[in-house]
Amino acid sequence: MSAAILVLLLDLTGTFAFAISGATAGVRKRLDLFGVLVLAFAAATAGGIARDALIGATPPAALADWRYLAVSIVAGLAAFYFFEQIERLRHPVQLFDAIGLGFFAVSGAGKALAYDLGPSGAVLLGMLSGIGGGIARDLLVAEVPSVLRRELYAVAALLAAACVVAGDALGWPAAPTALAGALACIGLRMLAVHRGWQLPVAGPRAPKDPSGE
Amino acid sequence: MSAAILVLLLDLTGTFAFAISGATAGVRKRLDLFGVLVLAFAAATAGGIARDALIGATPPAALADWRYLAVSIVAGLAAFYFFEQIERLRHPVQLFDAIGLGFFAVSGAGKALAYDLGPSGAVLLGMLSGIGGGIARDLLVAEVPSVLRRELYAVAALLAAACVVAGDALGWPAAPTALAGALACIGLRMLAVHRGWQLPVAGPRAPKDPSGE
Amino acid sequence: MSAAILVLLLDLTGTFAFAISGATAGVRKRLDLFGVLVLAFAAATAGGIARDALIGATPPAALADWRYLAVSIVAGLAAFYFFEQIERLRHPVQLFDAIGLGFFAVSGAGKALAYDLGPSGAVLLGMLSGIGGGIARDLLVAEVPSVLRRELYAVAALLAAACVVAGDALGWPAAPTALAGALACIGLRMLAVHRGWQLPVAGPRAPKDPSGE
Repeated sequence: MSAAILVLLLDLTGTFAFAISGATAGVRKRLDLFGVLVLAFAAATAGGIARDALIGATPPAALADWRYLAVSIVAGLAAFYFFEQIERLRHPVQLFDAIGLGFFAVSGAGKALAYDLGPSGAVLLGMLSGIGGGIARDLLVAEVPSVLRRELYAVAALLAAACVVAGDALGWPAAPTALAGALACIGLRMLAVHRGWQLPVAGPRAPKDPSGE
Repeated sequence: MSAAILVLLLDLTGTFAFAISGATAGVRKRLDLFGVLVLAFAAATAGGIARDALIGATPPAALADWRYLAVSIVAGLAAFYFFEQIERLRHPVQLFDAIGLGFFAVSGAGKALAYDLGPSGAVLLGMLSGIGGGIARDLLVAEVPSVLRRELYAVAALLAAACVVAGDALGWPAAPTALAGALACIGLRMLAVHRGWQLPVAGPRAPKDPSGE
Repeated sequence: MSAAILVLLLDLTGTFAFAISGATAGVRKRLDLFGVLVLAFAAATAGGIARDALIGATPPAALADWRYLAVSIVAGLAAFYFFEQIERLRHPVQLFDAIGLGFFAVSGAGKALAYDLGPSGAVLLGMLSGIGGGIARDLLVAEVPSVLRRELYAVAALLAAACVVAGDALGWPAAPTALAGALACIGLRMLAVHRGWQLPVAGPRAPKDPSGE
């Protein structure tokens, strides 16, 4: 019972963090209040909605459960009316975002396994659950998704999902494995942010195409 | 019988109006004839296709019924060969577009309820049915979706969907409720266009980021 | 048996060719190694995944079968570490790409028919299977999809899908019809590339909007 409440709290925390990131992107692009709310909801739920559509779990949980919408609206209103204060909270927001990433990746991989996906499919869908919201957010404001560029962002989601899938294959207990995967994701992501870790970029063309940055 | 014919006529009218908007966007971006037809079809059907994929109503009606394709092709050819004339018909096109928006939002919310979505999910899917085509159109030409910025566009779709869901919850008769919702949407949208109504944009950053407009 | 192996080989060849095109686009946009791999996988599988989601064939084959992921990763690593060499192989890559296009369109149309889509829906889904990967690739790097502009690209996919659907309606044997459709697509596409065939672009605005190119 308390585990279910913990899971729900973590899930809604991640939803809130991702909704904040979507709403602030909308404010920066000068969308109106409603556009900001749409972006908040899209960033918070697109990963889970895509996962559910792909595994056939229709209707997606984020549409069937009103709490995801409610949390997204609260986060969107907060970002709209307190934009400057939130911009100053960059570090806490990044921590929330990493928590959301880890938890979404873990729960996405677990749901994919429950729908009989194989290991590689479950890892991919776990990663998609984590990074899909950020991709939808950036596509809607016509930018190259930053989750494909930022410090070990998608890699951290992959790590969390891979922990869950490996634990499932090896018969480890589900809850501690999921927690370990989420913590590994959060730790890797926060370390990468603070130390500026990056994956390599293909070298030879670097001086020729600065506009691609 | 005559109600079904009316519904079909309204649905195909909306499809035609949305296909015109997609095709003219393609002509403006200098796509070739086939690209223009793809954009016409995407703008006309993406909202309904996304809704059907999300509620599990596969295959989507817009793919299973050839009439949506036929109407989209006719509209696309018209926009391709009579682009300048259609550009001059801005006001009738906006009216058609508002009619399509209202009817798609109403029918989308109704279909979502028929597939056992809850109230908040049905409102969201009704709105998505209305604005999804415009979002697909703008993403395909690499622009920020104008439906997230234009005068009360998504809000009008939300109003229509909310009418249907409220009527369903309160046990009102379906057909008049749907008609009232669609008319409210069309009226709100046309008023917003003619009077320039806008939702607020977050204020403090306005002078700093004009490029975001 | 040997037919099944041939189909698998062609399918994985197309996957490899499309993954190369996605990965090179990612390298050009200065994505890091992981972003390049995501783009390789998206370009190789998005068409088939969208088709499967729309016909209700969940989970999509490209997620359930690890070989698509493995081939995409190999292609992505090759493009990342041997980018300049691959850039010089433009002509072989275009041939592979045309083979992938033809085979994906043929197999996509066949799968749609097997899921009881009608003729127009099956043609559309066959075309989408062929061009969907290229659309996803270009959307992820925030560009107008080149498959909507390139020499008879989508048209060639449409031709292949239409062959399969026509053959099904007329009772022709499936395997030779599919082969003929794929060959017609490959031939048309390669002819269009080498002779610079283009569909018309709407004329009057050409001098006014060169930036749209």
